[in-house]
Amino acid sequence: MGAKHDLLERVKDIHRLGSIQGHLGWDREVLMPPKGAAARSDVLAWLAAESHRRMVDDDLGALLDAVAEEAVDDPDLGATVRDVQRSRDRALRLPESFVADFARKRSIAQGAWQEARAASDFAAFAPHLQALVNMTKQRVNLLGAEGPAYNALLDDYEIGSTMAAYDPLFAGLKDRLVPLLARIMAASKDTPMPTLPAEARFPIAAQEAFCRKVSAHMGFDFEAGRMDVSTHPFSAGLWPGDTRFTTRFDERDPFSCLYAVMHETGHALYEQGLPGVHAFTPRGKAISLGVHESQSRFWENQIGRTEAFWSVAGPWFHDAFPNLPKMDAATMNRIANKVEPGFIRVEADEVTYNLHIMLRYELEKAMFDGGLAVEDLPATWNAMFLDWFGLDVPEDRLGCLQDIHWSMGAFGYFPTYTLGNLYAAQLLEAMTHDVGDVDALIASGAWSAPLAWLRERIHERGSLHLPEALIEEATGRAPTPEPFLTYVERKDSALYGL
Amino acid sequence: MGAKHDLLERVKDIHRLGSIQGHLGWDREVLMPPKGAAARSDVLAWLAAESHRRMVDDDLGALLDAVAEEAVDDPDLGATVRDVQRSRDRALRLPESFVADFARKRSIAQGAWQEARAASDFAAFAPHLQALVNMTKQRVNLLGAEGPAYNALLDDYEIGSTMAAYDPLFAGLKDRLVPLLARIMAASKDTPMPTLPAEARFPIAAQEAFCRKVSAHMGFDFEAGRMDVSTHPFSAGLWPGDTRFTTRFDERDPFSCLYAVMHETGHALYEQGLPGVHAFTPRGKAISLGVHESQSRFWENQIGRTEAFWSVAGPWFHDAFPNLPKMDAATMNRIANKVEPGFIRVEADEVTYNLHIMLRYELEKAMFDGGLAVEDLPATWNAMFLDWFGLDVPEDRLGCLQDIHWSMGAFGYFPTYTLGNLYAAQLLEAMTHDVGDVDALIASGAWSAPLAWLRERIHERGSLHLPEALIEEATGRAPTPEPFLTYVERKDSALYGL
Repeated sequence: MGAKHDLLERVKDIHRLGSIQGHLGWDREVLMPPKGAAARSDVLAWLAAESHRRMVDDDLGALLDAVAEEAVDDPDLGATVRDVQRSRDRALRLPESFVADFARKRSIAQGAWQEARAASDFAAFAPHLQALVNMTKQRVNLLGAEGPAYNALLDDYEIGSTMAAYDPLFAGLKDRLVPLLARIMAASKDTPMPTLPAEARFPIAAQEAFCRKVSAHMGFDFEAGRMDVSTHPFSAGLWPGDTRFTTRFDERDPFSCLYAVMHETGHALYEQGLPGVHAFTPRGKAISLGVHESQSRFWENQIGRTEAFWSVAGPWFHDAFPNLPKMDAATMNRIANKVEPGFIRVEADEVTYNLHIMLRYELEKAMFDGGLAVEDLPATWNAMFLDWFGLDVPEDRLGCLQDIHWSMGAFGYFPTYTLGNLYAAQLLEAMTHDVGDVDALIASGAWSAPLAWLRERIHERGSLHLPEALIEEATGRAPTPEPFLTYVERKDSALYGL
Repeated sequence: MGAKHDLLERVKDIHRLGSIQGHLGWDREVLMPPKGAAARSDVLAWLAAESHRRMVDDDLGALLDAVAEEAVDDPDLGATVRDVQRSRDRALRLPESFVADFARKRSIAQGAWQEARAASDFAAFAPHLQALVNMTKQRVNLLGAEGPAYNALLDDYEIGSTMAAYDPLFAGLKDRLVPLLARIMAASKDTPMPTLPAEARFPIAAQEAFCRKVSAHMGFDFEAGRMDVSTHPFSAGLWPGDTRFTTRFDERDPFSCLYAVMHETGHALYEQGLPGVHAFTPRGKAISLGVHESQSRFWENQIGRTEAFWSVAGPWFHDAFPNLPKMDAATMNRIANKVEPGFIRVEADEVTYNLHIMLRYELEKAMFDGGLAVEDLPATWNAMFLDWFGLDVPEDRLGCLQDIHWSMGAFGYFPTYTLGNLYAAQLLEAMTHDVGDVDALIASGAWSAPLAWLRERIHERGSLHLPEALIEEATGRAPTPEPFLTYVERKDSALYGL
C-alpha cells in the first residue's frame, strides 16, 4: 500500500478518463447523430484537459519520486512509472493553452482535409497543413528534444525509434522489394492472377455472418466485445471485458470487409489478451503502435492470405454466397494475394505496402528537417510516386491527400505500420519454431495455437518491455527485416512462379 | 463573469460527468457485451464519486453564497442555484461511505430481483428489499428531513410533493375511476372491443420503419438523436444535439412497439426542446419526473390513442403490413383503447393505470410510515389487488415483483407517473383553448402545432419554474385532476357507449 497504492489510484483515474474518451470517440465514429458533433468535441476536449490537469499535478510527481526505489525491483510498477513519467514530462512542458490551441487547429484541419480530399484540392488544405507543421515544430521545441525534430516525432509514436534506425532499415527493404515487384509485374503479364467474378454481388448480411464466423474462429470473444460498422474500420480496447472493432461493407468486394475484420480482430485480440489485473495502468496496456500493428497484420496477412486459411474458410465463404462459382483454396488465395502497384496505401498488397510507407517517411523527413515546403508537397509526392511505382498520380485525392494522418497532426506515425509488418513476419518465424508449421495448424482448424503463443509472448506482457525488447524476448532475436523479406519473397515466388 | 461564471463552470463540470454517466448507462442497456458489466459498474461508481466530491467541495459552497444576491434578480441563475443548493445540501449530509454502500446494495438487489422475478420467488428478494428499506430510512434520517419519512421520499422524486397533497388527489381519482371501470366492464360484456387478428405477424423491419415515420412526424429530429433497441424502452437526453430513445419489438403485437415509441419520443422531444444555451446547467434541464411523464403520456395517449391519429397513421400502418385486413381509423382506435383490468402496470390502459400507481403508493406509505413489514408485502398486495381490480394474483411475478423500482431503492417514484397523466390532460385542455381542436390538427397532419405549444410552454422553460408553477403558468390554473377525469370519462363513454 502506501505510495505505490496512491500512485496507482491516481494513474487509474487518468486512464479511466482515457477509456471514457475512447468510448465517446468510438461512439462518435459508429453511432453519433450529426448534430451531436459540437457537444462531443466539447466534452472530449474537456476530458483531455481533465487528464492533463491530473498528469501535471504536483502530488503525482511526488508519488512518482516516492516509489522510484521500489520500482527498481518491481517490474510491473517499473513499467507504469516509466510510462507515466514520460507522459508527465511531456505534459509539464506543454502549456495547457498550447494543447488546447493545437487540438482546435487539428480539429479544424480534419474538417478542411475531408473537404479538400473530396474536391481533390490541395491548395484548400495547404494553409491548415502548414499550421499543423508549424505547431508540431513548436511542440518539439517546447518538449526540449535534442537533435532533429523528426526524431522526436518518431519517438512520439514508437518509443525509442529514430531516423538512424529507420534509414538503413527502409533502404534495405527498398533494395529488395523494388526488384521483387519488377519480377512479379513481369511474371503477371504472362499469367495474370484470378479475380472474383466482376458481376458477382455479395449481400451484406451474408458478408457479416461470414466475417463474424472468421473473427470468432480467430478467437475474438463476442461476449467481451462487439463488431460494428464505421466509415473507416478501427479497433478500440475500451474497457476490460468490452473490446470493439468496426468494419465496412462493399457489395462488390467481400474481401474488403473480410481483411478489415481479420486486421481489426488482430488488434482486438491483443486488447482482449491484455492482463486484466493491471487494467487502467500502463503495465496493462499495449506497448506500442508498431507492436499493435504486428498483431493486426499477422492475422490479416500471415494467416488470412494463405492457402491454409482458405482451405478452412473457403467452404464457409461458398456457403455464405451459394451462387458464386466454386473455387478451390489455391484460387481463393491467389485472388487474395494479387500484387499490383496502386495509388492507395490502404488497398496495397504486402509487397507495395511498405513502399507507400517509405514514401511518406521520406516526405515527413523532408518537411521537418529537409526544407520541403508544404506547397511543394504534391509535386514532390507525384515525382517520387512515378519514380517508385511507375504511376502518374492524376489527382491529389489519390496522392498526398489520401491519408487522414497529417490532418490530425500525426507526423511520424506512418513508419509504425512497416514495423508492424516486419514484427509480424518475425513472430511467425519464431512461432513456427515453437509450435510447428503454422499453415498446417491453420489448415487443421487449430487456430487457437497461434493465438495462445501470441497471448503468452505479446499480449500478457502489456507494457512490461519496450517494443524492441518485447520482440527480442518473444522471438529470441532483435527486430530485423530479414524474416519479412524471406517471407514475402518466398510467398510471391511461389504464387507467381518466379 | 466573476462568481457567476466560476459557479457555472463548476456546475457544468458536474453535469458533464452526469452526461457521461448517462451515456455509459445508455450503452450498457443497448450495446454492452455481457463481460463488460464489471468494468462498467466500476466506472459508473467512480463517476458518481467524482460528482459527489465536486458537489461537496467548499469552493462550490462559497460560489453559491457569492451569487445569492445576484440570483434574486436573475431567474436563470436562480433556477440553477436552487437546484445545485438542493443537491449540495443532500450530498453534504450523506457520507461518501454511505453513498457507496447504498449503491452497492442497490446493485446487488437489482440482480437478486431479476432472478427472483424470473422464479416468482419473493422470499429470495425479501432480504434485499429489507436492506434497501432500512438504508432508505437511514438516508432520510441523515438528510434530517422533518415529518414522515415517506414525504422526504416523495419530495426526492418530485420536488415539493407530499402525502398531504397526494392523499386527497388519489382519493378523488379512485372515487371516479373505480365506478368508471365498472361501467366499462359491464358495457364490454355486450360489445367487446375489436382486436388485431390473433394469427397476424408483423415483421420487425416493417414495424421499425412505421414507428420511425410516426416518431419523425411527431417532430423527433433524427439528425439530433437515435432510436435503438433495449429490453425495457427508455429515453435519454444525453448531449445537446444527441438525444436517444429505445423501443422493443414483438412480432405478434405492433402496438407494443408503436406506443413505446410514441411514449419515448414524447420524452425525447422534451429533451430536444430544452434550451441549448443553458446546456449542462440545471436551468437547461427538465424540471421533474412528473413533467417528463406528462410529455410522454401526452403523445402516447392524448395524441396516439385517438381516431384522429389513426386517420393519419392508419394508412401508414396498412402500407407497412399489406397482408393485414383493412381496418378504418375508428376500429384501429378502439383496438388501441381497450380497457381491462390486468396484472401488469406497464400494459395497463388509461383507466386502470392510475389504480396500479395508487396501490403502490399505499404500500410504500405503509412500508415507511405505517408499519407494513416487508415479509407481509405479497399478501397485502394481493389482497388489495383483489379488492381494487377483482383479480386474484396467481404469482408474485405478476404482483409485487413486477416492477424494477423497489430493487433500485426508488421508493416514492411511482406517484410521478400519475402526475404525468394528470398534467398531460391538463396540457391538452389548455392547448385546445389556445390552438383549437387538437384532434382536428392531428387529423389534418399538422402535428407541429401541439409540439410548438409544448416547446414554448414546457420545453424551453427547462428548470426555470418548479413543477406546479410550470403547469400553472402553462395552463392558467394550478394542477388539478379534473381535466384528466373529464378526458377519460368522455373518451370511454364514447368508445363504450356508456
